[in-house]
Amino acid sequence: MRNVQVELAHAPYDIRIGRNLLDDVAAIVAQLPQKRVAIVSNETVAPLYLPQLQAALEAADVQVHTVVLPDGERFKNWETLNLIFDGLLTARCERKTTLIALGGGVIGDMTGFAAAVYQRGVPFIQIPTTLLAQVDSSVGGKTAINHPLGKNMIGAFYQPRLVLADLATLDTLPAREFSAGMAEVIKYGLIDDLAFFEWLEANIDAVMARDVDALEYLIERCCQNKARVVAADEHEHGQRALLNLGHTFGHAIEAGLGYGVWLHGEAVAAGMVLAALASHALGQISDDDLARIRALLEKAGLPVVSPALGEERYLELMSQDKKVDAGKIKFILLEKLGQSYIGELKTETIKQALAAGCAA
Amino acid sequence: MRNVQVELAHAPYDIRIGRNLLDDVAAIVAQLPQKRVAIVSNETVAPLYLPQLQAALEAADVQVHTVVLPDGERFKNWETLNLIFDGLLTARCERKTTLIALGGGVIGDMTGFAAAVYQRGVPFIQIPTTLLAQVDSSVGGKTAINHPLGKNMIGAFYQPRLVLADLATLDTLPAREFSAGMAEVIKYGLIDDLAFFEWLEANIDAVMARDVDALEYLIERCCQNKARVVAADEHEHGQRALLNLGHTFGHAIEAGLGYGVWLHGEAVAAGMVLAALASHALGQISDDDLARIRALLEKAGLPVVSPALGEERYLELMSQDKKVDAGKIKFILLEKLGQSYIGELKTETIKQALAAGCAA
Repeated sequence: MRNVQVELAHAPYDIRIGRNLLDDVAAIVAQLPQKRVAIVSNETVAPLYLPQLQAALEAADVQVHTVVLPDGERFKNWETLNLIFDGLLTARCERKTTLIALGGGVIGDMTGFAAAVYQRGVPFIQIPTTLLAQVDSSVGGKTAINHPLGKNMIGAFYQPRLVLADLATLDTLPAREFSAGMAEVIKYGLIDDLAFFEWLEANIDAVMARDVDALEYLIERCCQNKARVVAADEHEHGQRALLNLGHTFGHAIEAGLGYGVWLHGEAVAAGMVLAALASHALGQISDDDLARIRALLEKAGLPVVSPALGEERYLELMSQDKKVDAGKIKFILLEKLGQSYIGELKTETIKQALAAGCAA
Repeated sequence: MRNVQVELAHAPYDIRIGRNLLDDVAAIVAQLPQKRVAIVSNETVAPLYLPQLQAALEAADVQVHTVVLPDGERFKNWETLNLIFDGLLTARCERKTTLIALGGGVIGDMTGFAAAVYQRGVPFIQIPTTLLAQVDSSVGGKTAINHPLGKNMIGAFYQPRLVLADLATLDTLPAREFSAGMAEVIKYGLIDDLAFFEWLEANIDAVMARDVDALEYLIERCCQNKARVVAADEHEHGQRALLNLGHTFGHAIEAGLGYGVWLHGEAVAAGMVLAALASHALGQISDDDLARIRALLEKAGLPVVSPALGEERYLELMSQDKKVDAGKIKFILLEKLGQSYIGELKTETIKQALAAGCAA
């Protein structure tokens, strides 16, 4: 078992990483202000892990309510969020009742947002069951739902009291989902951790075979990296934006194809290649760097060519991004491999990257 | 012009109180991180004050978007909130675009909640145009929408950067709405300010005639009282709950009659009488105190008899209140006139108060 502490101004919390954490609920019970929880999961994850978690909690004398949502990014909306509120209100959950998210990023984002706004805020614990959620969305307190006019447009910064990353839950994760999580893993290497990027190049086979030791190290390293960035900039006024490498392009890909066609991580992977191509066009990274980035993403089972949406559509979609300030789009770019910065791009450079990175 | 500073841990802000503040937008402009705002108002208030505010802001070179919502508590729901998000996203409002609430408590609560969650939080300025909003809902950062199963169940604590209480906007306030605001005014006297309660007894005629000097003093005193309580307990873990005097009963009245039948302030007035009756049953306040409370509320044009919903229905409705902890309902009770505390009531005492305070 490894432990990463996230040091935030008001609410430091632990991320516990290891196998079979669901069976040992003492860490959860220690965080409950009231021996009552509502577990939110989805139709895919609930049959696999909810009975086990519920039984363990009930054995510890905790009253458990459950809300099971439909599975998928397309349900990350107000209507589904309201199912959580309906469940909480029908069960008369109170301000001290803790919400537990059991699932991937969508469940974590929605449950976290529900916890942020139900009765103006109730305690929240996260049990991410996908690689993506374990390395990314469970750290940093970003919660949200989508709006028809934009992804993650409605949300809150809200920190969990505890995160349990149980490696055993990855056993049932489909290969495509595992790869999608690897996009965010590789991102940490690219933005400011060259040593980790090189560790990934050397260990990608063990990682893709889901070797337990490799995964435990990988998740810990990603969480440490993200926790450091988030602690320094909880509300994303500055450097935290580096975590969005590939995301401005990636969100455009997701929205342009229609949410759910590509997985978020797949879009981020192709988006990182576009960001790398733009950096390359600015003379900042070499042909060899580009090749290494593409090679690692491909070994992780990720797409490196973006869909042909047309440059005008890309520009339109990106202008709606949250990272727009006074009409200018902020991009995360690579100064070199393992070093990133926040910059702006001329339309010309964006078009150059799109021409080189999109399918014909 | 009077000024009350609300001292919160992270974000102190000013409440400016006076006549014709809408014409002088310098105070607003000084708070804008970007010369761009979205004003949210309703169909009743917008025709009266929106053109004036919009023109003054545009004259100061501020780009103004507007969202005009239907008027009424029954629209304080997700569907209407979404109209704000639709407007903001269609206009491509950004993280630095400031939301301005121009209207009463419903507009303030909804716009504040929209500001709290749009892109995970944007700047917020409040221009309350009712007495209730000026003395109560504009101070303290409570924002929310209703859920079919409960009032204010979905919301956030979110502080404005500035509050402008323009007395001129009260000129057009209907008498019934003015009286509803007086319920919260009288509440401040009852909970911990006997001197103010006595000032109100002595000056109630001038206040009801909307004498400018009386109103300016009254609003300042209420804001000071509330600001002091909120600063000491921003997230309502303790003493802030005193501000809920009359509200547990009052919410039950509102929900039991159907939202919108009685105004919030009317329900709070009758609810405060029920809280006083319960306190009286506990031997804590005298017959004379009860008579003074009823007399002042009646002079303010407020109901002092609660509707006959039946005691079982009252108990059921109150058990759904946000102030429930481990199944026990918290009540704000009077130790004596001008001094309140948080307590619990035996079902027997609640029934006694209902029997004495409800219509036959």
